[in-house]
Amino acid sequence: MTAALHELGVFAMADAVRNGRVRCVELVQACLDRIAERDCEVHAWAWLDPKAALETAALRDRQGSSGALHGVPLAVKDIFDTADMPTECGSPIYRGRRPCWDASSVALARRSGAVVLGKTVTTEFAYFSPGKTANPHNLLHTPGGSSSGSAAAVADAMVPAGFGTQTAASITRPASYCGVVGYKASVGAINLAGVKTFAPSFDSLGWLSRSVLDAQWIRWALLGEPHAANNENSLGPPRVGVCHTPWWDQADADCQRVVDAAARRLARGGALVSDATVPRGFERMAQTHKTIMAWEAARSLAYEYDAHHDLLSRQLLQLIDEGLATPYAEYRAALESLEVARRQCDDWMKSWDVVLAPSAPGAAPAGLHATGDPLFSRMWTLLGLPSVALPLDDVALRLPIGVQLLGRLGQDEQLLAVARWAESRFSASTH
Amino acid sequence: MTAALHELGVFAMADAVRNGRVRCVELVQACLDRIAERDCEVHAWAWLDPKAALETAALRDRQGSSGALHGVPLAVKDIFDTADMPTECGSPIYRGRRPCWDASSVALARRSGAVVLGKTVTTEFAYFSPGKTANPHNLLHTPGGSSSGSAAAVADAMVPAGFGTQTAASITRPASYCGVVGYKASVGAINLAGVKTFAPSFDSLGWLSRSVLDAQWIRWALLGEPHAANNENSLGPPRVGVCHTPWWDQADADCQRVVDAAARRLARGGALVSDATVPRGFERMAQTHKTIMAWEAARSLAYEYDAHHDLLSRQLLQLIDEGLATPYAEYRAALESLEVARRQCDDWMKSWDVVLAPSAPGAAPAGLHATGDPLFSRMWTLLGLPSVALPLDDVALRLPIGVQLLGRLGQDEQLLAVARWAESRFSASTH
Repeated sequence: MTAALHELGVFAMADAVRNGRVRCVELVQACLDRIAERDCEVHAWAWLDPKAALETAALRDRQGSSGALHGVPLAVKDIFDTADMPTECGSPIYRGRRPCWDASSVALARRSGAVVLGKTVTTEFAYFSPGKTANPHNLLHTPGGSSSGSAAAVADAMVPAGFGTQTAASITRPASYCGVVGYKASVGAINLAGVKTFAPSFDSLGWLSRSVLDAQWIRWALLGEPHAANNENSLGPPRVGVCHTPWWDQADADCQRVVDAAARRLARGGALVSDATVPRGFERMAQTHKTIMAWEAARSLAYEYDAHHDLLSRQLLQLIDEGLATPYAEYRAALESLEVARRQCDDWMKSWDVVLAPSAPGAAPAGLHATGDPLFSRMWTLLGLPSVALPLDDVALRLPIGVQLLGRLGQDEQLLAVARWAESRFSASTH
Repeated sequence: MTAALHELGVFAMADAVRNGRVRCVELVQACLDRIAERDCEVHAWAWLDPKAALETAALRDRQGSSGALHGVPLAVKDIFDTADMPTECGSPIYRGRRPCWDASSVALARRSGAVVLGKTVTTEFAYFSPGKTANPHNLLHTPGGSSSGSAAAVADAMVPAGFGTQTAASITRPASYCGVVGYKASVGAINLAGVKTFAPSFDSLGWLSRSVLDAQWIRWALLGEPHAANNENSLGPPRVGVCHTPWWDQADADCQRVVDAAARRLARGGALVSDATVPRGFERMAQTHKTIMAWEAARSLAYEYDAHHDLLSRQLLQLIDEGLATPYAEYRAALESLEVARRQCDDWMKSWDVVLAPSAPGAAPAGLHATGDPLFSRMWTLLGLPSVALPLDDVALRLPIGVQLLGRLGQDEQLLAVARWAESRFSASTH
């Protein structure tokens, strides 16, 4: 191996442990060393107990292989319940809170052999108020949110992968800002039991990693699928729809350049690339997303609003107040228009295998006081679509910036396969 | 008032408190007295702290009106998190567990002025293994499950209403067995944050009460809607589809008689009654429901399965093992057939305002070792439809038995309005 241990990906680590080339304690120690070196600046971790992590690693080494993630260190966003670590949801309300169970996804990852290294920083209840995390590419810039800590930790090679969630752009945007792969599953595709609820109509689970293969590998591990060797070369040239979205004029020059560069590289690689203009009326979906999110968040956080009002941020209070002021009929109408739009979208997307779109209006903005604009993911998240954010960080940029590929609802496997092909096209152009 | 205080419904209690005819402490005391008298036999309550309930009631009396449920005692199924009461989910794993928040619905009910009297018995994780509760109409018979305690407590006039959830038949069946009204909301319609997850594709919230007006009142309170005087007489005669379902031959004579009696009464009341045969292929939906529920429950309860295997019941382990053995492709296929069926159902239901169907294969079976068969709700719950179980307990039966009315997905308001009309027709025939 030429890469340092802590730089290995999920698949490579699992493979090395399985073949006896490395012990799990060595991997965990390498990650802990990297964290010790770097986290004083990046601040990706909300909670870390090196001794406990090493003990679990030693246990994995004694156990022998238990599953596809055996021995692999994993970061968990701090809105996922963990029975053996605090889960504070990025809020002072839950300082020191100890759940009595693991979230479903955490339990399944552990069953598969993963070592939960610690908890990563989330914005307050996965909404907008940032935590302490900085962008590892430039510490004066935001890592994006809400899965800030998982994205920064993965980007900085502190850990090969980390869980995240998305209700607006909480995986796609930090993945883009930090230059890593962000997979957001179809709504409902990965069980959210034990993850703090925000807007149940489109809260979705996913993870950050440094390759699409690693994202696939975690998915296979969680779903208990056989780990068939996935041969991306067996794919015919995919049909790619390039969607500038109704908000193209709000994308900056870097963003526009990256989307167009990505389209060219895919075309050069053999993809059938064509324009994908969203159906008429879809420009209203950013607003529909806001309406539903505010209404639902106001209900999800009813207890916190009543019992700990003073400990909620101004931004979150504003969203909740907006949600409480929204008439039920308006919320219902938004849900009904969503239902119609999901069917329309399903038809619309039949023309392509994936849709390529901006992942954020530009690279990570300066400052740690905000996590950037979720605009470019609101519509897709509302529609529940699976998404893979892919970095294209060689396009003469000061900071990383990615694009996202969208698949059809429930077609995550197909999306990931095309994303893996696209990733190889992107890197083929780089080198 | 001629009824004893503890026999008043939600609306009547709220009205009496609002108009100063009764104090909240008197209502709570009346309910506590009834519980003290009867719960040694019925065993509806998993947790009760009379002193704390009376203190909250006294606080409500001092506060003045806070909302539509001001001063109304309420039961909460023990899978709903409560910050000030244990939440044990009917499992020894969580004996004494104290959540740090209220479930969304509990917080909203409290905001509206309700007094949470205590926690009611649930089957183990709201699946099949029964708790200690007996049917108040005959203590040797099951109250049904999983919302056993809420149904029995409401039926026995210990409390005017109680929260429940439904993943198979967990509101409709106990409502039918105990002779009360059971409203199960459209899937996704009432926020489930803070309620233990089982099968997220169709876990739904609802409540048990003794009248449809009370069910409507709670809904309006939770949704923050204006309490418009609802005049059920303004409805034209509803179009009612009578659906024997593909399982009619598994309904016993009592059940068949009650469904037909209900149809006749509605017709006599002016409803346009016609046969509603489900679309071809819908007979497979009981199996589709089982497949999805097993797959999802196996993931929702991954932590409990791994960390507390010996404390799970044989029945639940069997379901989880079944879910773990189900290939992902089979689960995906089931979800896709559900998606198609939901669209078909939406078209099918356009012919009627509500569909009338059996609520259970018969009256409550003898014995407390099982909670009866969910067969007659599996399909409707899978489809996500809102349902109102209504009692028809004068049809010369040994034990109560109800019917259910189904509405279109998301049309809960319309369903409840028709249910209120139907309820008046049912009781008009009785007296």
